[in-house]
Amino acid sequence: MKFLTEYLKIHTQKKREYLNITPRVEEAVKKSGVKEGMVLVNAMHITASVYINDDERGLIEDFDEFLEKIAPYDLKKYRHHRTGEDNGDAHLKRQLFGREVVVAITGGKLDFGPWEQIFYAEFDGQRDKRVLVKVLGE
Amino acid sequence: MKFLTEYLKIHTQKKREYLNITPRVEEAVKKSGVKEGMVLVNAMHITASVYINDDERGLIEDFDEFLEKIAPYDLKKYRHHRTGEDNGDAHLKRQLFGREVVVAITGGKLDFGPWEQIFYAEFDGQRDKRVLVKVLGE
Amino acid sequence: MKFLTEYLKIHTQKKREYLNITPRVEEAVKKSGVKEGMVLVNAMHITASVYINDDERGLIEDFDEFLEKIAPYDLKKYRHHRTGEDNGDAHLKRQLFGREVVVAITGGKLDFGPWEQIFYAEFDGQRDKRVLVKVLGE
Repeated sequence: MKFLTEYLKIHTQKKREYLNITPRVEEAVKKSGVKEGMVLVNAMHITASVYINDDERGLIEDFDEFLEKIAPYDLKKYRHHRTGEDNGDAHLKRQLFGREVVVAITGGKLDFGPWEQIFYAEFDGQRDKRVLVKVLGE
Repeated sequence: MKFLTEYLKIHTQKKREYLNITPRVEEAVKKSGVKEGMVLVNAMHITASVYINDDERGLIEDFDEFLEKIAPYDLKKYRHHRTGEDNGDAHLKRQLFGREVVVAITGGKLDFGPWEQIFYAEFDGQRDKRVLVKVLGE
Repeated sequence: MKFLTEYLKIHTQKKREYLNITPRVEEAVKKSGVKEGMVLVNAMHITASVYINDDERGLIEDFDEFLEKIAPYDLKKYRHHRTGEDNGDAHLKRQLFGREVVVAITGGKLDFGPWEQIFYAEFDGQRDKRVLVKVLGE
């Protein structure tokens, strides 16, 4: 059984940003030599998500608008801010979009439908973050 | 180590539909011969979800009403529609209900609690879609 | 290949409660002897979630307030209650916070970022529930 563990470094320029990390995950799968198995991709920080959807700019703006409406950035709204933080909204946004994806590897490749792309969604950025890529199989 | 990869074909009659696919996943697990392991079940399309909850008609109507209220079908609402699409709502609904489930296999069976059932939730149907079932174990 | 299957018993005092189960998962991983692999942790009941986020009391209250606002407990609101149940809200809350997490194991430990903690979120408690922990690896 083969394993590969990679930590992708992320540092966004904006507070909220949506990055297509599919090529970096594909690279890790290739490096692992795994032909059949699974890859887990998860945000290692709790104000960010990893999800799979379309790489279309308008859609990403729709997602961002939706999340900002349902869980708005607001200094006074969240009890979490009593600790000195200002990112209560980012924790909530992350809960809705999820922490991780698990993707099948078949024939050495990500076994994807036609439009599936892996995204890292940053909700409290402009600092160093990491994404874990764990490959497991044969 | 054993692997099995199956692609379930789906084609719903309605735009939005919720299908219990548990028997089809159980069949794949049986076919794989895996006694201990995991099975990944994911929508291969980005306007559909795979989730686990109860197979109760009223509950499914509650889910559908909730999703339609929070992310309504609306031709004018979404930037994604500038591409000619009309399914911005379906992408959002899928984000909330998730892409995939991972289920443990113990003693050759899905290791489920009393009411767990695997659903395929279609949010932009009436055309050919696929669900990936990837079994991994021994 | 090694496997371990554990069923954590849960019985909350309150209807809704958020329990940090990280030590119990760590214990299972240690017991399994797995050094490289993955652990699946899922609620076995469909009115509860397992998720990963911060163990900060104010944040948990923010989460609870958010869920209660978006999917309120209400005897009359849900079609699911025609079956005699009163927990339609709990099924919905669970959908939003998810059923499961998959965590990488590296060097015999949960491969976590600085603040990641595994939570069991109970939305219909005060009775016996279970969480499945399935460890897989070498």
